[in-house]
Amino acid sequence: MTVTYSSKVANATFFGFHRLLLRWRGSIYKLLYREFIVFALLYTLLSVVYRLFLSETQKRYFEKLSLYCDRYAEQIPVTFVLGFYVTLVVNRWWNQFVNLPWPDRLMFLISSCVQGRDEQGRLLRRTLMRYVNLTSLLIFRSVSTAVCKRFPTMDHVVEAGFMTPEERKIFENLKSPHLKYWVPVVWFTNLASKARKEGRIKDSVDLQTILTEMNHFRTWCSTLFGYDWVGIPLVYTQVVTLAVYTFFFASIIGRQFLDPQRGYPGHDLDLYVPVFTLLQFFFYAGWLKVAEQLINPFGEDDDDFEANWCIDRNLQVSLMAVDEMHMNIPRMTKDIYWN
Amino acid sequence: MTVTYSSKVANATFFGFHRLLLRWRGSIYKLLYREFIVFALLYTLLSVVYRLFLSETQKRYFEKLSLYCDRYAEQIPVTFVLGFYVTLVVNRWWNQFVNLPWPDRLMFLISSCVQGRDEQGRLLRRTLMRYVNLTSLLIFRSVSTAVCKRFPTMDHVVEAGFMTPEERKIFENLKSPHLKYWVPVVWFTNLASKARKEGRIKDSVDLQTILTEMNHFRTWCSTLFGYDWVGIPLVYTQVVTLAVYTFFFASIIGRQFLDPQRGYPGHDLDLYVPVFTLLQFFFYAGWLKVAEQLINPFGEDDDDFEANWCIDRNLQVSLMAVDEMHMNIPRMTKDIYWN
Amino acid sequence: MTVTYSSKVANATFFGFHRLLLRWRGSIYKLLYREFIVFALLYTLLSVVYRLFLSETQKRYFEKLSLYCDRYAEQIPVTFVLGFYVTLVVNRWWNQFVNLPWPDRLMFLISSCVQGRDEQGRLLRRTLMRYVNLTSLLIFRSVSTAVCKRFPTMDHVVEAGFMTPEERKIFENLKSPHLKYWVPVVWFTNLASKARKEGRIKDSVDLQTILTEMNHFRTWCSTLFGYDWVGIPLVYTQVVTLAVYTFFFASIIGRQFLDPQRGYPGHDLDLYVPVFTLLQFFFYAGWLKVAEQLINPFGEDDDDFEANWCIDRNLQVSLMAVDEMHMNIPRMTKDIYWN
Amino acid sequence: MTVTYSSKVANATFFGFHRLLLRWRGSIYKLLYREFIVFALLYTLLSVVYRLFLSETQKRYFEKLSLYCDRYAEQIPVTFVLGFYVTLVVNRWWNQFVNLPWPDRLMFLISSCVQGRDEQGRLLRRTLMRYVNLTSLLIFRSVSTAVCKRFPTMDHVVEAGFMTPEERKIFENLKSPHLKYWVPVVWFTNLASKARKEGRIKDSVDLQTILTEMNHFRTWCSTLFGYDWVGIPLVYTQVVTLAVYTFFFASIIGRQFLDPQRGYPGHDLDLYVPVFTLLQFFFYAGWLKVAEQLINPFGEDDDDFEANWCIDRNLQVSLMAVDEMHMNIPRMTKDIYWN
Amino acid sequence: MTVTYSSKVANATFFGFHRLLLRWRGSIYKLLYREFIVFALLYTLLSVVYRLFLSETQKRYFEKLSLYCDRYAEQIPVTFVLGFYVTLVVNRWWNQFVNLPWPDRLMFLISSCVQGRDEQGRLLRRTLMRYVNLTSLLIFRSVSTAVCKRFPTMDHVVEAGFMTPEERKIFENLKSPHLKYWVPVVWFTNLASKARKEGRIKDSVDLQTILTEMNHFRTWCSTLFGYDWVGIPLVYTQVVTLAVYTFFFASIIGRQFLDPQRGYPGHDLDLYVPVFTLLQFFFYAGWLKVAEQLINPFGEDDDDFEANWCIDRNLQVSLMAVDEMHMNIPRMTKDIYWN
Repeated sequence: MTVTYSSKVANATFFGFHRLLLRWRGSIYKLLYREFIVFALLYTLLSVVYRLFLSETQKRYFEKLSLYCDRYAEQIPVTFVLGFYVTLVVNRWWNQFVNLPWPDRLMFLISSCVQGRDEQGRLLRRTLMRYVNLTSLLIFRSVSTAVCKRFPTMDHVVEAGFMTPEERKIFENLKSPHLKYWVPVVWFTNLASKARKEGRIKDSVDLQTILTEMNHFRTWCSTLFGYDWVGIPLVYTQVVTLAVYTFFFASIIGRQFLDPQRGYPGHDLDLYVPVFTLLQFFFYAGWLKVAEQLINPFGEDDDDFEANWCIDRNLQVSLMAVDEMHMNIPRMTKDIYWN
Repeated sequence: MTVTYSSKVANATFFGFHRLLLRWRGSIYKLLYREFIVFALLYTLLSVVYRLFLSETQKRYFEKLSLYCDRYAEQIPVTFVLGFYVTLVVNRWWNQFVNLPWPDRLMFLISSCVQGRDEQGRLLRRTLMRYVNLTSLLIFRSVSTAVCKRFPTMDHVVEAGFMTPEERKIFENLKSPHLKYWVPVVWFTNLASKARKEGRIKDSVDLQTILTEMNHFRTWCSTLFGYDWVGIPLVYTQVVTLAVYTFFFASIIGRQFLDPQRGYPGHDLDLYVPVFTLLQFFFYAGWLKVAEQLINPFGEDDDDFEANWCIDRNLQVSLMAVDEMHMNIPRMTKDIYWN
Repeated sequence: MTVTYSSKVANATFFGFHRLLLRWRGSIYKLLYREFIVFALLYTLLSVVYRLFLSETQKRYFEKLSLYCDRYAEQIPVTFVLGFYVTLVVNRWWNQFVNLPWPDRLMFLISSCVQGRDEQGRLLRRTLMRYVNLTSLLIFRSVSTAVCKRFPTMDHVVEAGFMTPEERKIFENLKSPHLKYWVPVVWFTNLASKARKEGRIKDSVDLQTILTEMNHFRTWCSTLFGYDWVGIPLVYTQVVTLAVYTFFFASIIGRQFLDPQRGYPGHDLDLYVPVFTLLQFFFYAGWLKVAEQLINPFGEDDDDFEANWCIDRNLQVSLMAVDEMHMNIPRMTKDIYWN
Repeated sequence: MTVTYSSKVANATFFGFHRLLLRWRGSIYKLLYREFIVFALLYTLLSVVYRLFLSETQKRYFEKLSLYCDRYAEQIPVTFVLGFYVTLVVNRWWNQFVNLPWPDRLMFLISSCVQGRDEQGRLLRRTLMRYVNLTSLLIFRSVSTAVCKRFPTMDHVVEAGFMTPEERKIFENLKSPHLKYWVPVVWFTNLASKARKEGRIKDSVDLQTILTEMNHFRTWCSTLFGYDWVGIPLVYTQVVTLAVYTFFFASIIGRQFLDPQRGYPGHDLDLYVPVFTLLQFFFYAGWLKVAEQLINPFGEDDDDFEANWCIDRNLQVSLMAVDEMHMNIPRMTKDIYWN
Repeated sequence: MTVTYSSKVANATFFGFHRLLLRWRGSIYKLLYREFIVFALLYTLLSVVYRLFLSETQKRYFEKLSLYCDRYAEQIPVTFVLGFYVTLVVNRWWNQFVNLPWPDRLMFLISSCVQGRDEQGRLLRRTLMRYVNLTSLLIFRSVSTAVCKRFPTMDHVVEAGFMTPEERKIFENLKSPHLKYWVPVVWFTNLASKARKEGRIKDSVDLQTILTEMNHFRTWCSTLFGYDWVGIPLVYTQVVTLAVYTFFFASIIGRQFLDPQRGYPGHDLDLYVPVFTLLQFFFYAGWLKVAEQLINPFGEDDDDFEANWCIDRNLQVSLMAVDEMHMNIPRMTKDIYWN
């Protein structure tokens, strides 16, 4: 489930965001504490070696090395690269959210335009909705690791009631070397076309609205699939990761407190704990974590989209809307502003 | 209500924006004065301690610490991080504005395409519009703290005339573990479909235009809901907040005026009041406040969207358009450019 | 009227843009000369005081102050803040242009799909177009100061022929505490619906295309209104303005030519005229002026959209298209490429 | 014609882009060589004067001036300003390409939905297409200097067969102080409406699809026109141009090789040819040239869109599609995968 | 085939991205190793020459040159230019992916709305789908080098079953100096129109939905073609390439380890291997490689779109959907949630 905190920041108040700093779920601390510990340990290790174990000559050499690393660490354009990269990742992440396939628009149309309160009518509406949900389920299985765990085989799909055994047989008899998530859509459109012939869908106008909406739905599905299939080019991710890792590698050496008595510029003070370097680690590594968390929003991170919840919600809600609620409208009464 | 100042800057004039600096409502001063006071107090405190209470050795140590902080404060990439983050927040904020659900398009269609000036016709049009308004109200209750305060329970919704008691009963009888803001939409589409059967909506073309428009409306609603539900990942907000807070923490120490007689570079002058540091506080904290104010535009900030006003306006206007104004058109007369 | 210069830069030629530097209308010089004079005067004043009126001690103190200001002036992230801010303003400005309500699409439909060359038909088409133009006029009155000056009251609207006196009466009898620019749209849709009943609009397909187009038109109108109503948050504008003003305040002190004989680094030369500081003023203040000019594009700047021209053009053109030109098509003859 | 080089960089190979550096057409060299020569000449001139003609005192003064210029040249934020500006220009340029009016979508519809293989039918389809092409031609005449040269008057339009003499007469008899590129669209829509009445267009559904498509077409046209009419505000272009020109002015003085024997920091070496300054000239001036070339993509640059070619292609292709190819479909035969 | 790695980064884990650093396919190493070797060799060569072959005087001169290069290398705004450029390239690359022409939406419509299970019906549906696939094939031949290799002539197209010999004859008899990829679309629309006349497509509503969808399909095709035809202006690519190459040229000289005994600032240490310069090479050259790889996504890079696979998949899937699966729907049975 995504971490929702917007109600906490509804108003801009006194140091409004500081409250956000004290959360654990989905927080920078939870995501980074392991890396932070490793970083701090390495730094300490090096610090101890420098202070206690090196000979004077070695110390001098290490000091030069440290200054060298420090100078080059600043030349690595981490901020800039991260800024552009994270913007790209965040845009993709949001587009994936926007393209989550919700069946609501279809269920409204089917509930109102596929006629008949008899069993045949109910069956028709429920079957149409089931195909819609089946389509999104097939896509989610490709896209989301969580859904894939829950429905590892088509057996699970049948068991969960998204597919009847007969449908499954037909589905598997279709010979194609390619993914078959489009099959339920063909069933849907053909079934709708048949319903028009039988008069359950009144005319072509109703039918085409439904088909067009189904095409929207399929476009959402295929867009999601596309985002999963064609990610940000590996090279880009590697460039950014390399930049950040190098920066920290250089920092571990270059940000050591050197002996103040040697008079190196900017090394007048020995604080033992490199406060600002640790904070810098938090910024840059945290920024990279934003990317790491969002680059595949269908995993099991605190902030990922809960595809399994979507699947359940969609099935429950859409069956209710097309069956129980079909033509089951409250009696019209005058509202309180009448005249 | 949002702070509208565009008419003040209609023309680019002599130092055009300076007038904006003298406003209070929604201004940087109003939003920041508390933080500013805290910052100034802390700075002063430290300054006094340094000048009056520290021993010479402590002063020397503090001076080193101050120079150290100053140097690292400049390495924190506040500008850049803020630039990217605020751009993201502003985009989201504007998209939320664009997706505010206005019923106008629907009310035009219903007013012109749902026939009958008799009571039944009026009832039908009013009920349809009420469902539209009810849908947006249910969404606003989830999204806006102000609306939630005004309509804490469904009782309030019924009282305000958005729902009849009977509708409420049906609404609550629908068993679903999920949010039910889509229920009035199902009622709407089924009622419209029934109206076509009865001939009040002339044919499928009219009906489908109305249903499609209703689907637009629902998409606006669900988009708003989505923005509230899936915010900017907490980590990103924390990274930015940490960066800004660290910068100011470092500034308080690092921007102290050190004894000019010690000859530290850049410390030739003791002004007592760190004008530029205070101004820098205004820039960075102000920039962050932009984000704080916009990250949830449905709060009660000066610049937030007034959801309650929207709700009232929409109900009043839409009922008037579909009832009183239905087929109540001025007599056509020749305009003054006729021939 | 906007300043059109694209034909001047159709081809990339030898120092292609230099010709643009020599224009006055809408130019940086015209917009900035007053601020520039003020800036230059203040600089000169301070320079004269420093050179002629200060005692030696005061000079030393001023020099320290100047160096201090210079150092901090460079820390103000003017470029960055301006870059992000101006990008935001330019995007909003262009979106407003894109959403200017043009009635052309509607007039094509009405001209071809509302039948009848008799007086009643002409009256119908003209009235429909008038309502379209009236809607945009009502919006322009809220949005544009120039239009508001031209049509300060509804009397002026009636006089200009956008509304008949009878329509005005009905308009004003509608009781609503809210803006009523949507009223002509309701008239339009109801009139169109009536025209279908009378057979002047052939069927629902024709009608719905017209209604949908009218909804587009209204969306443009409300988008324009939205841009006017919800501006860039005041805080953002203030932050940017403060940053730029502070920068120039710091520049006036910090960029003085100090006595070269004092040997301050970077102060070996006394040019009297601070060429680069003045140019920097042009960049930054010019960049801010871009924002100032575009933040409300419906003012009376050289580069603003001429709403009044739009209103006249739209009325004239649209009445001609639906009346005089209705079914007035040239005789079809074979073109010169026939066979 | 645009310079197409994508096939040259289909694969990322060893120093893949280096091949692009060796092209002349549309290249940075072709665009910049004149400016480069001027820049190099001025630099050389100044260098010669400094080395050979100045007295010792003058040399000292010039050296100070050079150091001063160098220091300030670095403060001009050319990179940043150019980055934002060029991004804006490139976006506009691409949007103009995307909005080039292609009649293909219309010609498919007209070819299939306007019935009749007799002469009257052919005439009808050809005339409709001619109006489409005429509309885009009228727009191109306003927008493109190349098209304007080819069709300086309406006579040329008639001669080229886009308009019949009779149409021209009607066109010119329409009295309007405004541009009249919308006139052929009115003819088109009225003619289509007439065709429906005569049964050549089967029903309203066919008609409205055609009219909607024509409205798309017109929107492309008016968008193109809008981009030409409302350019990037002159101030912005001037700010950027000023920044770049100032930078080069400062470079010519500030990047002179000063006498190494004077021991100025960073002036230990006299290379005579300022390699990096010349390269910097290439970057910045080249970047600005990108903007110069794209700001009006309808000129006659190597990289501009060939509007004249579009016009010819569109007429030829669209007449063929609606006339010769109407209902001229290959006999259906079984494909090779049948069963 | 694109390199899909999103499942590897589904969750943000301990140093989550480090696993990506160890891949070869599509990686920075595979793309850059040749350039890296060249760069390292040149650096080593120069280093050896400096250390072993130069006389003392030459060494002094080289050291000055090296310092000079180092200083200017830092002034080249590689990061910034690359950031803007790569963002542009990535956006174009993604838009090309989004506009890949998939026939799925059309095949759903044709499968459900083109009636008849007899041979004539099958033939009709298959032919329509074949024209759709043929259109995209003709575009892919222009756009993709891989497809062009596979189908170098129209013979290959006929052989692969996308075109019948008779169609080919007609296709080639159409005289036009322009590309003819639109021809199959005209056939498609005319054939569909004929099918309506024969009653195989029920009415205009069905027909127009299909034609509109075909127009979408064609728009995808022409968009792809547009991206190929009008690339990023050559100048822009050259500016960026020049900037990066110059930077590395300057680095090879400027980042040499100079004799520490000469006491040049920042040259206290001789590491022999310039770790950070090599890493910097990886960042910048890697970032440029991102652009190189994506600028034409239809080549044969590891990360390019597999157009040939698309073509095969589309033909196979779409023929199956419209033929074998037409009206071949599973029997409706009650789902497991029935009541």
